Amino acid sequence: MFFASDNAGPAHPKVMEALIAANDGYAMGYGADPIMDTVRTQIRDVFEAPEAAVYLIINGTAANSVLLASMTQPWQTVFCTECAHIHEDECNAPEFYTQAKLTLVPTANGKMAPDALRTKILGEENRGVHGPQRGPLSITQVTEKGTIYTLDEIQALTATAREFGMQTHLDGARFANALTALDCTPAEMTWKVGVDTVSFGGTKNGALGVEACVIFDPKIAWEFELRRKRGGHLLSKHRYLSAQMQAYLADDLWLDMARSANARCAQLAQGLRQHNAAKIIFEPQANMIFFQMPRREHKRVLDGGAIYYVMNGDPATGDPEEPLIGRLVCDWSMTEEGVSQFLDLLRV
Amino acid sequence: MFFASDNAGPAHPKVMEALIAANDGYAMGYGADPIMDTVRTQIRDVFEAPEAAVYLIINGTAANSVLLASMTQPWQTVFCTECAHIHEDECNAPEFYTQAKLTLVPTANGKMAPDALRTKILGEENRGVHGPQRGPLSITQVTEKGTIYTLDEIQALTATAREFGMQTHLDGARFANALTALDCTPAEMTWKVGVDTVSFGGTKNGALGVEACVIFDPKIAWEFELRRKRGGHLLSKHRYLSAQMQAYLADDLWLDMARSANARCAQLAQGLRQHNAAKIIFEPQANMIFFQMPRREHKRVLDGGAIYYVMNGDPATGDPEEPLIGRLVCDWSMTEEGVSQFLDLLRV
Amino acid sequence: MFFASDNAGPAHPKVMEALIAANDGYAMGYGADPIMDTVRTQIRDVFEAPEAAVYLIINGTAANSVLLASMTQPWQTVFCTECAHIHEDECNAPEFYTQAKLTLVPTANGKMAPDALRTKILGEENRGVHGPQRGPLSITQVTEKGTIYTLDEIQALTATAREFGMQTHLDGARFANALTALDCTPAEMTWKVGVDTVSFGGTKNGALGVEACVIFDPKIAWEFELRRKRGGHLLSKHRYLSAQMQAYLADDLWLDMARSANARCAQLAQGLRQHNAAKIIFEPQANMIFFQMPRREHKRVLDGGAIYYVMNGDPATGDPEEPLIGRLVCDWSMTEEGVSQFLDLLRV
Amino acid sequence: MFFASDNAGPAHPKVMEALIAANDGYAMGYGADPIMDTVRTQIRDVFEAPEAAVYLIINGTAANSVLLASMTQPWQTVFCTECAHIHEDECNAPEFYTQAKLTLVPTANGKMAPDALRTKILGEENRGVHGPQRGPLSITQVTEKGTIYTLDEIQALTATAREFGMQTHLDGARFANALTALDCTPAEMTWKVGVDTVSFGGTKNGALGVEACVIFDPKIAWEFELRRKRGGHLLSKHRYLSAQMQAYLADDLWLDMARSANARCAQLAQGLRQHNAAKIIFEPQANMIFFQMPRREHKRVLDGGAIYYVMNGDPATGDPEEPLIGRLVCDWSMTEEGVSQFLDLLRV
Repeated sequence: MFFASDNAGPAHPKVMEALIAANDGYAMGYGADPIMDTVRTQIRDVFEAPEAAVYLIINGTAANSVLLASMTQPWQTVFCTECAHIHEDECNAPEFYTQAKLTLVPTANGKMAPDALRTKILGEENRGVHGPQRGPLSITQVTEKGTIYTLDEIQALTATAREFGMQTHLDGARFANALTALDCTPAEMTWKVGVDTVSFGGTKNGALGVEACVIFDPKIAWEFELRRKRGGHLLSKHRYLSAQMQAYLADDLWLDMARSANARCAQLAQGLRQHNAAKIIFEPQANMIFFQMPRREHKRVLDGGAIYYVMNGDPATGDPEEPLIGRLVCDWSMTEEGVSQFLDLLRV
Repeated sequence: MFFASDNAGPAHPKVMEALIAANDGYAMGYGADPIMDTVRTQIRDVFEAPEAAVYLIINGTAANSVLLASMTQPWQTVFCTECAHIHEDECNAPEFYTQAKLTLVPTANGKMAPDALRTKILGEENRGVHGPQRGPLSITQVTEKGTIYTLDEIQALTATAREFGMQTHLDGARFANALTALDCTPAEMTWKVGVDTVSFGGTKNGALGVEACVIFDPKIAWEFELRRKRGGHLLSKHRYLSAQMQAYLADDLWLDMARSANARCAQLAQGLRQHNAAKIIFEPQANMIFFQMPRREHKRVLDGGAIYYVMNGDPATGDPEEPLIGRLVCDWSMTEEGVSQFLDLLRV
Repeated sequence: MFFASDNAGPAHPKVMEALIAANDGYAMGYGADPIMDTVRTQIRDVFEAPEAAVYLIINGTAANSVLLASMTQPWQTVFCTECAHIHEDECNAPEFYTQAKLTLVPTANGKMAPDALRTKILGEENRGVHGPQRGPLSITQVTEKGTIYTLDEIQALTATAREFGMQTHLDGARFANALTALDCTPAEMTWKVGVDTVSFGGTKNGALGVEACVIFDPKIAWEFELRRKRGGHLLSKHRYLSAQMQAYLADDLWLDMARSANARCAQLAQGLRQHNAAKIIFEPQANMIFFQMPRREHKRVLDGGAIYYVMNGDPATGDPEEPLIGRLVCDWSMTEEGVSQFLDLLRV
Repeated sequence: MFFASDNAGPAHPKVMEALIAANDGYAMGYGADPIMDTVRTQIRDVFEAPEAAVYLIINGTAANSVLLASMTQPWQTVFCTECAHIHEDECNAPEFYTQAKLTLVPTANGKMAPDALRTKILGEENRGVHGPQRGPLSITQVTEKGTIYTLDEIQALTATAREFGMQTHLDGARFANALTALDCTPAEMTWKVGVDTVSFGGTKNGALGVEACVIFDPKIAWEFELRRKRGGHLLSKHRYLSAQMQAYLADDLWLDMARSANARCAQLAQGLRQHNAAKIIFEPQANMIFFQMPRREHKRVLDGGAIYYVMNGDPATGDPEEPLIGRLVCDWSMTEEGVSQFLDLLRV
């Protein structure tokens, strides 16, 4: 009954097998390993982007930060939602790498609306040299609230950005979960709707720790390489990143894992809806649910062995009737039985 | 016959087994995994430093940069040798993290002499607010030239630094190779001779990618944690770092691997000394040899299948008699037969 | 009829005379000039703060940035209002100097409410190492909307900050205007109500270009000096900064100038209130007024020779009845006749 | 007898008069003042560079730092001499603004030799992504040792830089002194011999505090403007910078002042050569002399009222016969009598 995070589950056995297979003899370091050649081709094929520059990096914070730094000047501002991971959960890493600032666009459900974006863009930089200049847009798919942008919604955002000469970065820490939920292709969810760069997540979906940075217009590729190295993010024994990503993509393993996580989440949502005390907050569309429940109920379920985060208060002390928000995340390894056990506990 | 780098060899099977063992069920992320508790104890025991703060990070550049940033103010300068990895091989990562500069101390053989250090210290900051202020000393053990500081030499350098209120960082990317060569304890090679922080390498000696950052005075520990996160270097699935380090330290595996690499290097050195055309440049004391040989001889050996770097020229084109410098590095997995094969090729 | 900004007027003749008087013979540079000794004493006397560290710098952006950098760690966030000069008008200079980020507190009238501050403080850093840490509070007095905090209001804000271990910076680009409006002492408006550092403006109030940075707790003084130098903000011929500030403070010149500017603003406000088409937005308390008026009226007045900024639209084109916001600022040199002339034009 | 620095003398009366003349009524801020239009034209005329971008800034550290930042990427290294002001006297400001590092080229007399530059260029960046990349060259004219590059020497250096795709910055804190010594035109000393940007000094030569940043290829002009603002170096009451520079350039005042300073230095050199105990170190070519003399002689002269820096020891204590190096700098206001008085004191 572990629903605290999708970065707490194990790596998929096939990923681990690939690591072992890669651990044979000598291999040139720093991305010159032959497995990386395979990975580059895999990613380009998956994205239908034969010119794309492809790099591997150990986690989402690094992927986001180095990509954004390669797209942003220090006197600019990056547009993202108020709840964006790059704003809330990276301890100023994006600011460190970009040397710029973030402009926060309000959001009701984790998703940015084009009008809200436009308002903020127009609000910034009407001051010539005095204010920050417009940098890129960064959106998250699956959002931090478990919601998903439709392709049209992404298109509308990138079009708004492009109208002001801005590029778009997509934080895809849960890319696979969104993709399988939308049942579209990676190209359709990215460059075909105006996305310029992608943090393509593996870590939360069955890898040990690997993300691909995908740059559709390779003219910033060399800058990215230098920034990655300068951030200490170029691995010498790079083959162990390559091997993870190679196995992740092979035989649609990544899609299978995401589908499984999403299915468990749907099962959870269905159960929660049948529970009087619980109320789902945002329409869960991928592998993450936010729900409201009285403190006493949270306490009871947590005491019963469930593991998840209560976001806005201590479940143990305070008014037992006060509604608190819990977050449930399913990873690829969550079983149908695990979910059922949780729902049984919830229902009692 | 792969002598290009000790970061090109495989991880030790026991390290890989530990990874597999760690890949079971859920584990809290970001360093809160139970294996990390074990590792912390192991490192503190190994260093006889029960108060030390211990963190894991993916590579040497990150270890050096985040440690130095936690020891340095942006208006200071870090003292290191002209050939220090932090100066030559990290694409300004130390400058990025510290926001400071480096002062280069001349060196004949990779080792810094206390007098040369003192001269540079006195040369910097005689200018009040106008010049850079004195920051920490950073030394490398094994040095980038394959030489090793004696304990007395380290003591003399840290004493010089301390005289000016400066702390000392030790870049121990090849810590184990130095330790086994000196046949001393980790405490003797570090805090007992005045070292304040250590980048304790695992990657070059049989891990996939892990270094421990050891901070003897824990008062900068929280700053280190924030800087690590802000650099994108805190891993969510941290258990895979922990597992590597746990296995690396268990049953003296790390020492056995280093001894093996050093022994192969000694075997190489002995063979080179019997070869008329080759001349060893620095006394090799660990697992790395720099040697001089005419271009034609390099070409012949490389064409014969040996793999190593020629540092100062293209072995394929130019005056065949011109002496060029080659670098040979033995990793833990290098076999006696591999070395013999190379020496046979050399000898013809 | 120049109401565009208080940084567009001339310097006071007495300030200019002091410059000329200072331009005699040789003087040690970089703050070692004897006039600076006088200034230091003047500021300490004015603030009743005999221990305060006092430095001069050329403008408000530099004063704010170097002070905040000396109070903030790169992994922290500075709390300020949505309309703070440090957020809107300094092209990321505070981010450049602090390497941190800003958290924007909503405001209705330029003033921050303690509850709004508390909400933001509690919103940040509930995430341990993952989110930004709490840095200092920065408030502006006079605010960017022409309003003024009462002493109690400042006290309430600094108390809220202090509750969370945070210090407070006061951006006093219009310090004198606020002080004379409140009719209190500098000590009462700063350290007696919990302010730790002050950007004490001279430029907008009759100097050529000088601000004092006042640090009540001198333990960050040396860091400030190094950061000032590192930012390129230590002037070699420092006496010309000193002379400005010396004359500015002598014989209460600074207070007289601020009183005059405030009086002209009050005269303006009175006139505007008698004009049917104009509506004052925020209660003007110092030397700045924001007022709403139909576009056609703005156009008429501007065409008539008045100079001021229309904040939210082009006065020349668009619906003539659309209400637009104008900003009127009075500097020390604005005359009663100048204001009357403007009001006559307005009334027609 | 004040020879400590050329930044300790007064501003020229004509510069002061221009300040007073500029202090009349309102003027738009931030460089939009009409005097700046005049200055832009003056500088373009002086440099025969009608397309050049021209900006004013308060001092040499800021001029150098913002210009270099506009020419350098954070992963590059700037090539300069070991004694460059940007290395020794700016407390890491160039590193702060560029986020890059400096590579120090050895020098015997303050001047960089093309071969020494080439050696350092080839030494850096033979390491692909691992090492710093090649950034611009920065040379100082007059050098920090009082020597002057011939036009051919500058040409040889910029040609070497250009061979590797590098641009050249000229730190001209003493530009006028060099120009009049060489008796050439500004164009001949800059873009005609391959210089791309110039810090054109006014402060050390009779201004209160102003330098022009001259950018021959205006494509980095907008970046420069943003970086200047972000560094807090855009002055609101900009007219007081403009007025200084306008007067400085008018009627060749700048050249007259430099010629006078150089003439006084020549007078000094002639006198020193006739003194047995004193030995001039570098051939003084502009307004600065380094000379060696026994400690007892320095002590005697300083006690007699002369003011200058002794660079490498305390003149008051130590072996009286030990030779110490003194530095004598003449500013525009130094009189023939002042020099004679010093020489008389020296001779006794």
